[in-house]
Amino acid sequence: MLKVAILMGSDSDLPVLKPCMEHLKKFGIPYEVRVMSAHRTPHVACDFATNAKANGFGVIIAAAGKAAHLAGVIAAHTILPVIGIPVKSSTMDGLDSLLSVVQMPSGIPVATVAIDGAANAAILAAQILALSDEAIADKLVAFKEKMATDVVEKDRNLQNEING
Amino acid sequence: MLKVAILMGSDSDLPVLKPCMEHLKKFGIPYEVRVMSAHRTPHVACDFATNAKANGFGVIIAAAGKAAHLAGVIAAHTILPVIGIPVKSSTMDGLDSLLSVVQMPSGIPVATVAIDGAANAAILAAQILALSDEAIADKLVAFKEKMATDVVEKDRNLQNEING
Amino acid sequence: MLKVAILMGSDSDLPVLKPCMEHLKKFGIPYEVRVMSAHRTPHVACDFATNAKANGFGVIIAAAGKAAHLAGVIAAHTILPVIGIPVKSSTMDGLDSLLSVVQMPSGIPVATVAIDGAANAAILAAQILALSDEAIADKLVAFKEKMATDVVEKDRNLQNEING
Amino acid sequence: MLKVAILMGSDSDLPVLKPCMEHLKKFGIPYEVRVMSAHRTPHVACDFATNAKANGFGVIIAAAGKAAHLAGVIAAHTILPVIGIPVKSSTMDGLDSLLSVVQMPSGIPVATVAIDGAANAAILAAQILALSDEAIADKLVAFKEKMATDVVEKDRNLQNEING
Amino acid sequence: MLKVAILMGSDSDLPVLKPCMEHLKKFGIPYEVRVMSAHRTPHVACDFATNAKANGFGVIIAAAGKAAHLAGVIAAHTILPVIGIPVKSSTMDGLDSLLSVVQMPSGIPVATVAIDGAANAAILAAQILALSDEAIADKLVAFKEKMATDVVEKDRNLQNEING
Amino acid sequence: MLKVAILMGSDSDLPVLKPCMEHLKKFGIPYEVRVMSAHRTPHVACDFATNAKANGFGVIIAAAGKAAHLAGVIAAHTILPVIGIPVKSSTMDGLDSLLSVVQMPSGIPVATVAIDGAANAAILAAQILALSDEAIADKLVAFKEKMATDVVEKDRNLQNEING
Amino acid sequence: MLKVAILMGSDSDLPVLKPCMEHLKKFGIPYEVRVMSAHRTPHVACDFATNAKANGFGVIIAAAGKAAHLAGVIAAHTILPVIGIPVKSSTMDGLDSLLSVVQMPSGIPVATVAIDGAANAAILAAQILALSDEAIADKLVAFKEKMATDVVEKDRNLQNEING
Amino acid sequence: MLKVAILMGSDSDLPVLKPCMEHLKKFGIPYEVRVMSAHRTPHVACDFATNAKANGFGVIIAAAGKAAHLAGVIAAHTILPVIGIPVKSSTMDGLDSLLSVVQMPSGIPVATVAIDGAANAAILAAQILALSDEAIADKLVAFKEKMATDVVEKDRNLQNEING
Repeated sequence: MLKVAILMGSDSDLPVLKPCMEHLKKFGIPYEVRVMSAHRTPHVACDFATNAKANGFGVIIAAAGKAAHLAGVIAAHTILPVIGIPVKSSTMDGLDSLLSVVQMPSGIPVATVAIDGAANAAILAAQILALSDEAIADKLVAFKEKMATDVVEKDRNLQNEING
Repeated sequence: MLKVAILMGSDSDLPVLKPCMEHLKKFGIPYEVRVMSAHRTPHVACDFATNAKANGFGVIIAAAGKAAHLAGVIAAHTILPVIGIPVKSSTMDGLDSLLSVVQMPSGIPVATVAIDGAANAAILAAQILALSDEAIADKLVAFKEKMATDVVEKDRNLQNEING
Repeated sequence: MLKVAILMGSDSDLPVLKPCMEHLKKFGIPYEVRVMSAHRTPHVACDFATNAKANGFGVIIAAAGKAAHLAGVIAAHTILPVIGIPVKSSTMDGLDSLLSVVQMPSGIPVATVAIDGAANAAILAAQILALSDEAIADKLVAFKEKMATDVVEKDRNLQNEING
Repeated sequence: MLKVAILMGSDSDLPVLKPCMEHLKKFGIPYEVRVMSAHRTPHVACDFATNAKANGFGVIIAAAGKAAHLAGVIAAHTILPVIGIPVKSSTMDGLDSLLSVVQMPSGIPVATVAIDGAANAAILAAQILALSDEAIADKLVAFKEKMATDVVEKDRNLQNEING
Repeated sequence: MLKVAILMGSDSDLPVLKPCMEHLKKFGIPYEVRVMSAHRTPHVACDFATNAKANGFGVIIAAAGKAAHLAGVIAAHTILPVIGIPVKSSTMDGLDSLLSVVQMPSGIPVATVAIDGAANAAILAAQILALSDEAIADKLVAFKEKMATDVVEKDRNLQNEING
Repeated sequence: MLKVAILMGSDSDLPVLKPCMEHLKKFGIPYEVRVMSAHRTPHVACDFATNAKANGFGVIIAAAGKAAHLAGVIAAHTILPVIGIPVKSSTMDGLDSLLSVVQMPSGIPVATVAIDGAANAAILAAQILALSDEAIADKLVAFKEKMATDVVEKDRNLQNEING
Repeated sequence: MLKVAILMGSDSDLPVLKPCMEHLKKFGIPYEVRVMSAHRTPHVACDFATNAKANGFGVIIAAAGKAAHLAGVIAAHTILPVIGIPVKSSTMDGLDSLLSVVQMPSGIPVATVAIDGAANAAILAAQILALSDEAIADKLVAFKEKMATDVVEKDRNLQNEING
Repeated sequence: MLKVAILMGSDSDLPVLKPCMEHLKKFGIPYEVRVMSAHRTPHVACDFATNAKANGFGVIIAAAGKAAHLAGVIAAHTILPVIGIPVKSSTMDGLDSLLSVVQMPSGIPVATVAIDGAANAAILAAQILALSDEAIADKLVAFKEKMATDVVEKDRNLQNEING
């Protein structure tokens, strides 16, 4: 079964990435978590990306902040789909990270999710892997139904409380 | 073979989407192009998304401008991976489209590419489909090599011209 | 008497919406509060909007954050006036919500109020309903006068305190 | 029958407002067009707003650019619903106009549409008036159906051309 | 001696304006503080501005947040120089206030200072009044020298502490 | 009679400044136009500002683009009121100029007008000088009335044309 | 003598970089121009940066647009000072490029100049090399004087023309 | 040995600059810290910059917030490389400082680092000085290796903890 890689530019990004791991676990998708930096350990990043496909990875999730190059650098060295999570840091409210991740030049896409959107990165990875894995597809359908049920229940609670 | 859907909110987005079609053609990936609007034909969009998987689609690309809801609305109705292309319109330089596409709430991801990044949407779709199709994977590798060769050649030409 | 619907994309938006309910109460306008999501429960949203007019609603207020599609999705399914409240979330200081709500394409307007502007959404709803309900119109006139009186009183207090 | 007022801060805004007039005509809604400035003719604006209800107006549409105060100033003097159109001028890509129109303080709402969104201002006005005028409501339903039909037709044409 | 008016759109702006009063006091310039709102008490604002010159005011300082129209509305009714202070509120980090104050249309200037720049509003008022009042001019020269002396002293302290 | 200085950072800013000169002429206010740069000729700027008061200037208008420091540098060397015009250049739509001019630190105000707001800079200078010159005050009153009359006339023309 | 490298992410950036070459020529500093891409030819970029010091380069100038990673990627592989030029592309007015270049994480600086600021990149490179090369220092002093003289002459011409 | 100057516009910027001093210490580079203001003590800034080269400085680091002119003013008076640190203040999230520092006009570059990027300013200064000082170059190589080792170790720890 294809694995997902979760890469972060700094281990300070770990709290932001927790929902990513939780959702992959929920979908039964194996993953590996790594700290590597486009700028501080470029060779590690290059090697990881170059060998990711051969090493059994199917999707790479990369999270970084500020001039967030990690996802782009990874994408330069692989044909695997790369999902970028722009991480909000102490200035510019995440706009710098978002633009650095999403505005990739033609030829090297990064599938960008919302600022700090770690859960969605996991769900997107699951959607991609589900194309050739019906078990994951079934879990995604159930997940979607559960989400709907949760909203409906919250709606009912609120109506009881407020409108009642 | 899984097809790609290319959806646009308005047929005025067609010129922006041309590189998307050209790249899918290059990778030998079958695609269908549709005009549908999250706001003007919501039922068409809902039906299309709901049945997309059953109808043989593997990836959905959705392009729209301004308060660009098309990709998000499609993603609400399918577990297929949805790629969003924010289209620059006459005001706000594409920022409104980008934020409307990428800042999706937890649970419903949209894989966002750059503003007007139609070629990258196609390449990302190919990367996703390549996970279970070695022929596409081979074409992506060749495409990546061709890109590199082109840059190297441009580099050589420039050096001859300027540094020579 | 026409009712107002107050829709929120998530029950976490409830605190932001409290002033909306308070003001509608003040104007004696009946309202119903619902949680529904453009992305997680799209069918609920679609059904609600489609039947809102028949169910006695006159105005729909929809609040959501980030890529805030709720108001737009509702507006796609009704000819009732839809008021959108962009809700500030944890990144981008509300700009993403604002642009996602206000920059609607031609044909499907959303009457947008300020970021987190829940009180104004209620007042706007009252102004709309007042066109065919003189009692509400009278309350709006009184409300406007009360606001002016309050400012004048604060002005007097301040002058006593500071200039005195 | 209640009239709509279309106010512009400068007659240079007229081209932007053409779609507004055309749509009101289409819905059979009587309107008057006026040039008045929150800053250059504040008394005209004040008088107009103060007497608008008595003069038979039901909705006021106000368009202005830059530090666009016209809609807000009008709203200060009436309980009629005021629709604001932020007009893009030569700098800041419409962001200044948008924020000046939409970010109204609590108590005085302006129903803001997209930058240069003149057609939507008219449609919103029609939706408001339709609450007490079934003929307009019928026209809005027909308009919505026509929009959908147009998109469906464009979709069919595109499919014939591209996919065919 | 010409007085300065300090106007605020809401008494919640008072803390931001404290440095304004302190600096005017320091320069020995008489001032009056008022709460008035462009939107809630437009007639008060209009009357105040219309009569400000006759009432002995030389400069009007107006502070407001969000769609901050107060300074512009005041400027519409007087030929006195109007200084605008954009006040940062809970969203948009002051950008909405700044653009609403500074981007005035041709014909009606507002002399805008920095977001929350209350001290500078006072100093600017003093600079304006100093043109015909040598005593204020002398105080401004002394103030400027004191500022320089303070920086030089801080510099010396820092050097002793760090470089020493 | 006190003169106005019009300083520009580069002679390429001259077209933007034309309305400034025309308005000062209209008000009968003598002015001198200079090219000087905060960065390329800092000593010229420093000398000019230091001696401006002694040389008969009452107000200094400074226009510059990008990291527009000219107004701030001038303000550092004089107690005369300094009016800053942020000039839009080829990138960032004027936002860089605006923030560089308006966001001055406490102690050194710059009276900022709109991006490219040259006419308003002249009018503001006239308003300042009018405090001690009734002739200018009279011209400002007449100018304000003329502006109102012009709008009223445009309004009448438009009504004849459109509503007629 | 240490050389300067001028790197561009795409040969379409060449026109923007012309002033860079012209200024280096003016200062008599040898340079080499190369096309290489952080994303399309990452190994070329990595090799170039890794060997740049050994190959006689003293400063590296890197220009790129959108999610402009070139300068950062180069800086990851060398201890030479790297100057980044954010290039404005078709959307976002250069803001994406600027933030992607300047907001580098701690440890890997990029000396960023203005958007499209190619001349300044050359001058900065010259300032750096001048620290150990008095001939360049002399040329920089002369260049600075020439700039001042040019402004003074433009000032004189303008005064003759306008004030005369 | 050439010294580095660390200038701050206000002693309140000192905490932001601590990492700058620590890194220079680590590289064994002598530095002097000064408080001086482009606006409050312009003559001090002018004198310092004019004499910096003669006084043994090789690089000048200047930090300031808001309309941050300090680096630009210093650069106007020296041919030494000037590194600018935009300091985030209470509004605009650092964007005002960044644009005021980086968007310098042609002729006077400022080598800009990230908002609050004090460590990188020191490293950039070291990179510049290392061009003629092999000892610093060796320390930079060691620093780069240490950074890489640290990331690798954090990566190992994280893998043990999470993947283990």
